[in-house]
Amino acid sequence: MKLTPQEAMALAIEEGKKGSGFVSPNPLVGCVILSRDYHFLAKGYHERVGDAHAEINALKAVHDPALLVGAHVFVTLEPCAHKGRTGSCARHLATLPIASVTYGIEDPNPLVSGQGARILREAGKQVQLLGEMQSELEELAEIFLLNMRQRRPFVSLKIASSLDGQVALADGTSQWITGSAARKQVQLLRGYHDAVLTGLGTIQKDNPRLNSRDLRFINKKQKLVILDPSGSLQFRDRPLLQVRSPEDILWITGVDVTDARDGVVARFVPMNDDKFDLSAVLALLMKAGIFSVMIEAGPFTASTFLSSHLVDRLYLFMAPSLIGAGQSWTSGLTIPRLDQALRLRDFRCVSCDEDILATGRLLWS
Amino acid sequence: MKLTPQEAMALAIEEGKKGSGFVSPNPLVGCVILSRDYHFLAKGYHERVGDAHAEINALKAVHDPALLVGAHVFVTLEPCAHKGRTGSCARHLATLPIASVTYGIEDPNPLVSGQGARILREAGKQVQLLGEMQSELEELAEIFLLNMRQRRPFVSLKIASSLDGQVALADGTSQWITGSAARKQVQLLRGYHDAVLTGLGTIQKDNPRLNSRDLRFINKKQKLVILDPSGSLQFRDRPLLQVRSPEDILWITGVDVTDARDGVVARFVPMNDDKFDLSAVLALLMKAGIFSVMIEAGPFTASTFLSSHLVDRLYLFMAPSLIGAGQSWTSGLTIPRLDQALRLRDFRCVSCDEDILATGRLLWS
Repeated sequence: MKLTPQEAMALAIEEGKKGSGFVSPNPLVGCVILSRDYHFLAKGYHERVGDAHAEINALKAVHDPALLVGAHVFVTLEPCAHKGRTGSCARHLATLPIASVTYGIEDPNPLVSGQGARILREAGKQVQLLGEMQSELEELAEIFLLNMRQRRPFVSLKIASSLDGQVALADGTSQWITGSAARKQVQLLRGYHDAVLTGLGTIQKDNPRLNSRDLRFINKKQKLVILDPSGSLQFRDRPLLQVRSPEDILWITGVDVTDARDGVVARFVPMNDDKFDLSAVLALLMKAGIFSVMIEAGPFTASTFLSSHLVDRLYLFMAPSLIGAGQSWTSGLTIPRLDQALRLRDFRCVSCDEDILATGRLLWS
Repeated sequence: MKLTPQEAMALAIEEGKKGSGFVSPNPLVGCVILSRDYHFLAKGYHERVGDAHAEINALKAVHDPALLVGAHVFVTLEPCAHKGRTGSCARHLATLPIASVTYGIEDPNPLVSGQGARILREAGKQVQLLGEMQSELEELAEIFLLNMRQRRPFVSLKIASSLDGQVALADGTSQWITGSAARKQVQLLRGYHDAVLTGLGTIQKDNPRLNSRDLRFINKKQKLVILDPSGSLQFRDRPLLQVRSPEDILWITGVDVTDARDGVVARFVPMNDDKFDLSAVLALLMKAGIFSVMIEAGPFTASTFLSSHLVDRLYLFMAPSLIGAGQSWTSGLTIPRLDQALRLRDFRCVSCDEDILATGRLLWS
């Protein structure tokens, strides 16, 4: 089957997604190899941090090396020039009889950007940036790109609301607003992130586990971040600790708690006006090896992150229901003028059985 | 091209929709005729009240009467038995050499239901109810079916909100939350209904025209219903009256206004606790020949209709934006328990350029 460059790149993007949840702190990358006359030969993706890059996995899938003569490689991100854990992909590709390499995004590190392309060009390969499908390509690598550009973890906010924007009745009742398909999707999203972040209130109210029960992630170290201003959380008998080890809990307290509690060590972050300095919280997470975090918390925490311009993607599950005067998830957010409303980019809506999932990027310049 | 019964009925439904806005108080009906070996022959729909029914229009489109021998007729609603303005379709079909008639929904009038089918059966035709696609078929004829079953106008509620359920900032600013594609869709919806209903507050705040500027409806008599508790609306210089005649305004007042104002006659409906008796309002509209009405009003009116269980369909346009603590469109609605949240049936979400339109039926038993 003959593929156009756009079709090859779209397939490479789909391929790259398969690594979701396993490549941190690397980017998700997919690769497709076409024969000299543009027939599909092979595909591959970066499966797990420390393992082979996408290009290498795609090359492994070519059953006859002779087919590589004059072949065309499509990869979502510029092939790496540096020799990291797995060797330089650009140098390896340079040794092969392939004709061309087309990549989707330049290496975001300005110090090495373009070097992979240069190595390949010097080896006589035709090298080009695709120059299309930028939003899909950026989305695939969004965690990595934000890590590079902003030097902080990527923050997703997950909300389950009614169609009229309520997450609970006025009295706080909230289980369950969305249905089982939406909750299953949340299990996946938890696995896709390095950690879930919640607040003391949510733990006290819902007593949740906040881990992914999706089989794909059953053996993954799942970390949980808890914002506990008063340092008053008691872990004993909480399901939180029954599904993960104490060292996988990042217990952020606004007061200095010196002794570990039920094996969990507190990490003190100073507060201003009853609110955590969220930039300091995120810096602490990055240092602890958390490159992406999904917030699952109440309206106060959600609104505080939004007001601080520290949410990068919204995952809004909406049930086809109306709740009326309840608790709105953005009740703590104030917008002075309508043209300053927070806007989602690359917004899309997909169905989740009876519910819908609306998602988009929040860009802060 | 050969069609299955389901494909023929789906095509008939699409055909029926083309009459939207022009058939009141009749139902939207579509018809598809297949040859004896199930190849597509013709289609037609009920185009305008008083004109030919769907079956007759489809028959007119069959270029050679000989093709009708053994043909199969698919019609979304049971062919009419009675001789109204246009003669009985069942009796006409009975005289033709067709083999079968498949219909989607029985005539909702229990006094005549099944009579069209009986006439055809007695003429030796094979007659059957499709027994599938009930939600699509019911939706096509939803206005008519509700008129028959509940003896009141069909009520749609149109809302333009942010993703977090706000229709305005706290200070009331609301223009424009959604984009031009959504507003264009609203122009169509206005034309599809017999009238738009609004409240005094919306007129005072936005000074709107509330008519359809879509070319299809430019020559349609567009009626406007205004709920004015205090009877204080001054029409002079309002764009409302520049785009329609005084007799097309149904000015519902909570006090008895004896003299016409700027040519507009007041219609008094008593109020309870500062609220109109909405059943009385709807009864008045039905008497005035309004069989469907779309509410475009503020949170108070929207919430009052919802609380009274008098909304049949929601058209919720949502912009990919977050407004925070503003005005919620259901602020006047109170739900005592989560399992009593209002649920939308046959819910779906379609994209409207950058915005989305979420729609579904509210069923009250």
